[in-house]
Amino acid sequence: MPEVTFQPIGKRVLVPSGSSLLDAARQAGIELSAVCGGEGSCGQCRVQVLSGSVSTPSASETFILTGQELANGERLACCTQICGDVKVHIPTSSLLSGTRLQIESSLRDVTVDPLIRAVDVEAPAPCIEDPRADVNRLLDAMARPDNHMTLFAEPAVVRQISPSAREYGWKMSVYVRDAEIVGIGPRGRSPVGLAVDLGTTKIAAFLLDLETGQELAAAGAPNPQIGYGEDVISRLNYARHRDDGAQILAGLIGETLTDLLDGLTRQADVDRYRIVDACIVGNTAMTHLMLQLPTAQLATAPYVAATSAALDVKARDIGLEIAPGAYVHILPGIGGFVGADHVAMILAGDMDRTERVTIGVDIGTNTEIALAQPGAGFLISTSCASGPAFEGAHVTDGMRAASGAIEAVHLLDPGVRLKTIGQGAPVGLCGSGIVDAIAEMRRRQVINYRGRFQKDNPRVRIGHDGPELLLAPANESGSGRDVVITQQDINAIQLAKGAIRAGLDVMLQTSQVLPEEIEEVLIAGAFGSFLNIESALDIGLLPRFPHAVYRQVGNAAAVGAKWALISRAERERARQIASTTRYLELMTHPDFSHLFALGMFFPTDEEIDRGKT
Amino acid sequence: MPEVTFQPIGKRVLVPSGSSLLDAARQAGIELSAVCGGEGSCGQCRVQVLSGSVSTPSASETFILTGQELANGERLACCTQICGDVKVHIPTSSLLSGTRLQIESSLRDVTVDPLIRAVDVEAPAPCIEDPRADVNRLLDAMARPDNHMTLFAEPAVVRQISPSAREYGWKMSVYVRDAEIVGIGPRGRSPVGLAVDLGTTKIAAFLLDLETGQELAAAGAPNPQIGYGEDVISRLNYARHRDDGAQILAGLIGETLTDLLDGLTRQADVDRYRIVDACIVGNTAMTHLMLQLPTAQLATAPYVAATSAALDVKARDIGLEIAPGAYVHILPGIGGFVGADHVAMILAGDMDRTERVTIGVDIGTNTEIALAQPGAGFLISTSCASGPAFEGAHVTDGMRAASGAIEAVHLLDPGVRLKTIGQGAPVGLCGSGIVDAIAEMRRRQVINYRGRFQKDNPRVRIGHDGPELLLAPANESGSGRDVVITQQDINAIQLAKGAIRAGLDVMLQTSQVLPEEIEEVLIAGAFGSFLNIESALDIGLLPRFPHAVYRQVGNAAAVGAKWALISRAERERARQIASTTRYLELMTHPDFSHLFALGMFFPTDEEIDRGKT
Repeated sequence: MPEVTFQPIGKRVLVPSGSSLLDAARQAGIELSAVCGGEGSCGQCRVQVLSGSVSTPSASETFILTGQELANGERLACCTQICGDVKVHIPTSSLLSGTRLQIESSLRDVTVDPLIRAVDVEAPAPCIEDPRADVNRLLDAMARPDNHMTLFAEPAVVRQISPSAREYGWKMSVYVRDAEIVGIGPRGRSPVGLAVDLGTTKIAAFLLDLETGQELAAAGAPNPQIGYGEDVISRLNYARHRDDGAQILAGLIGETLTDLLDGLTRQADVDRYRIVDACIVGNTAMTHLMLQLPTAQLATAPYVAATSAALDVKARDIGLEIAPGAYVHILPGIGGFVGADHVAMILAGDMDRTERVTIGVDIGTNTEIALAQPGAGFLISTSCASGPAFEGAHVTDGMRAASGAIEAVHLLDPGVRLKTIGQGAPVGLCGSGIVDAIAEMRRRQVINYRGRFQKDNPRVRIGHDGPELLLAPANESGSGRDVVITQQDINAIQLAKGAIRAGLDVMLQTSQVLPEEIEEVLIAGAFGSFLNIESALDIGLLPRFPHAVYRQVGNAAAVGAKWALISRAERERARQIASTTRYLELMTHPDFSHLFALGMFFPTDEEIDRGKT
Repeated sequence: MPEVTFQPIGKRVLVPSGSSLLDAARQAGIELSAVCGGEGSCGQCRVQVLSGSVSTPSASETFILTGQELANGERLACCTQICGDVKVHIPTSSLLSGTRLQIESSLRDVTVDPLIRAVDVEAPAPCIEDPRADVNRLLDAMARPDNHMTLFAEPAVVRQISPSAREYGWKMSVYVRDAEIVGIGPRGRSPVGLAVDLGTTKIAAFLLDLETGQELAAAGAPNPQIGYGEDVISRLNYARHRDDGAQILAGLIGETLTDLLDGLTRQADVDRYRIVDACIVGNTAMTHLMLQLPTAQLATAPYVAATSAALDVKARDIGLEIAPGAYVHILPGIGGFVGADHVAMILAGDMDRTERVTIGVDIGTNTEIALAQPGAGFLISTSCASGPAFEGAHVTDGMRAASGAIEAVHLLDPGVRLKTIGQGAPVGLCGSGIVDAIAEMRRRQVINYRGRFQKDNPRVRIGHDGPELLLAPANESGSGRDVVITQQDINAIQLAKGAIRAGLDVMLQTSQVLPEEIEEVLIAGAFGSFLNIESALDIGLLPRFPHAVYRQVGNAAAVGAKWALISRAERERARQIASTTRYLELMTHPDFSHLFALGMFFPTDEEIDRGKT
């Protein structure tokens, strides 16, 4: 079989001749971007063949790729068949953008103490003199004089035991959760767990070894519910107003989890029956939609969750084919839209036992904020409807954090220097790029503290929709169109940041904490990970607390999910956090609208200068 | 609305004009036999209109009923519409034969202590100042200083809580099982439980009030799997040899349980959400097929069950729509084909704590036998493949215990006196009729102790298949054909009784118990309930133990299921019985074949005479 080597990762796989490069990459555990599903139409799975023997370019490829690109060895991985040994280079831009979710902070290690034990068992085979039932035979072999707990296996697990025990010759590992057998496997393989961060925009999933706690594989995918509404309220409305709406939205999550699981098991070379536990975090709407919980009361005032308690559901009941009796633990939420992902962030940030006055903030379509004060015995959390502007939506040239997205902007004299994801031609701006661009515009007086373009500034031009800043002209852009920032874009960012600032301000006011008292600010989430903090402070997206350390902690919600997966103690701590965190409702606060309006302003020149010292 | 009065029960109902008599009977909780489903084709739902105004006879009725019958007021309930007040007589033969399952012994009463508690709860409605999640709101209202158990509700129950709590104005009864909320209902209604005896031939189901233990409704139906094999082995083979076989057989049980549940809830006027617990008993094959457990290892030697442990499954997982979180408890079995129904019989017969040497026997397609010795600390059970002859199968004019079945036979000098179910013309013989007929034939020397016809006996005639006894000539029978007993029929009964006797003999031998030591014989099951014990002893179906009392205890398996439903202690006792009862495998006993052959003989004339004294 031909050998395929992937650069720069250096991974090698043997695949049957005639396989596509996309298949080979999958087999190597490399998730290429391919939204068309490998149909040769999206052009996202571009790779460069460095050497070796492959099929001649297909019609799709000659249509999508230029002559020069083809001459340079560039191909679409889905259209290229392998004819012999081949070396391939994968540009970062072709990797599934989900990989950007995986940047993680150096949060502390957790002692591995999972809910599932793997017990090695050997039982005699049945015979006419010993016709005990299969499960009873197993239980007898597991009985210990010091343990009188009656183990049990439900029908789904019994269905696995009878054939598999025979296949393993009655020597096996039995996976046990408290008194329940959730599955069996051959001996000598450690049980594995699945952790999922179910985001409104992105879903990140991880496999962890439940004996070592080691991460075995990671994968990400866009949340396919986006097609039914970018924000949670539109999705909740879709679920309410169509008979099968809830089912459709839940089905999409189920399918995506299944796809992610496929990728993860291939990456880690793990059989599904070895995946014996799972933890999922997400905001209230996401977990409600996944579990088809009632949402009518969540979509309208007073925005009440059906449940914010922790849930243990059978994995099979949400369509996850893992060990037959495996559970999915959904971490508890706090209230309203403040859900399990927020609890997981507090958990991963150790905010419940911090010794410093700490703010934790996860900026997204909904921005959740938590405030922890040492010794208070409780935390306070709130949620702001910041909208999807930081995800690139409702912005003229906004886009997701994918290949070609501008993530950093420097205004030069004259001109602009841009940094794009994947180093390609600029296509649009992702969230961190928008923040960076507006911060530069504010610093360079392209806009004033009210967010209005300074029309006499030479960088400002008048476009279709009024004044705008040109970042990349059509002939240099990846889209073939000018990439610009308009007055409307700035307004959208102002609205988003106004909501966040109002949330923060109401929270501090309510809890009588002064800005000077804040000692630490944890910035969590995918957007927060790539955010230029200086820029965020310069546009006032985050306040410049005089004595605070700002710490970007990556996808803390995912880390919390992983901790709850591998540790009973952390799972219990999540429950404690949920029950001791007070939910702050912003809408009922009398100053909210006023603070919202104030929060939309950018810092004054004086404030910006003060920040520099 | 017209009033319909049903005689001889005296029940009255008001129904809309134009309703059928079948509908009216259903509404009155009277289950008429109607295998065609009310299509006017089976002729089973015959009733007699005594007075009042009904529709004129339909085409179906004039086809099925004779002119004299119509003149006599006889009608098909499904075809007869009610036009005004009407009085109707229901002959026993038209009652669903399942009613014959309901004869129950005077077994002791059980203290009601069900697993489900109904807790009255009142919670404040949500508002913007109090946006706690619905479930958390409920749990907070249920929190008691003396109870720190964390209650939980799984998604299926959460789906009920959000809409129903609002419907009840946040005043409700919460149904709790240990720490789990299984459903909610309005206040002031007691929770209800479902008990099922899942027989190979018949399914009996009961609703019980879980506060009083009172039986609210009872219904029976044939096991529809009969179409896929009369004995369990043929059904297991069907499940194994067809891809969807297991699913089809499980689906049939699910549908029948749903139909029975429909009838029961109508009879007792109970909403389904109030049914919060269920207990099911059945032999190993029946429970395995219902739960789609693996059966390959059960259908072939060494005939090993996948599990004989007690199981708690969600009712919804077997297609039962009752309270959303309700469980079905399947009682534990013992081994091989000796299943939960046998444990239930031992339970209901109190055999595990008897003070007398007791044999319990449930005669059916499989006959289970248990032996209890006071102080032994264990019971012994076995199963004999007695075949379906006692259910009327494999017998020339055999039939189920339905209207027209001969259930008792007296040979007169000359002639025959027959007793039929429903007092109608004889159609065939049910199990108890066959036993009674053969006993009479043996007493009157029509057959000898080897089971051969005495050809010189004047009652014996030579028919198509050799010598036979005529019970009813064609012109007197309900089928229009002669009703006879042939040599083959006698042989079939000999095979069946041979298996049972061999089982009993091996059991006594193995446990070194002498026939004189047996003090009590419990005869359980539908067939056993209607059996003429003297006849059973005279043909040697049961041995004539010199010091034994023979007690017919009715459907003891169903009683056991009811006890386990209404009492934690009895459910726990079933577990104890299952774990302390030893399974006796007949096949491996060296004397089995010999004892089988001996057991096929009938008692000698001398033995019969001795029995009379």
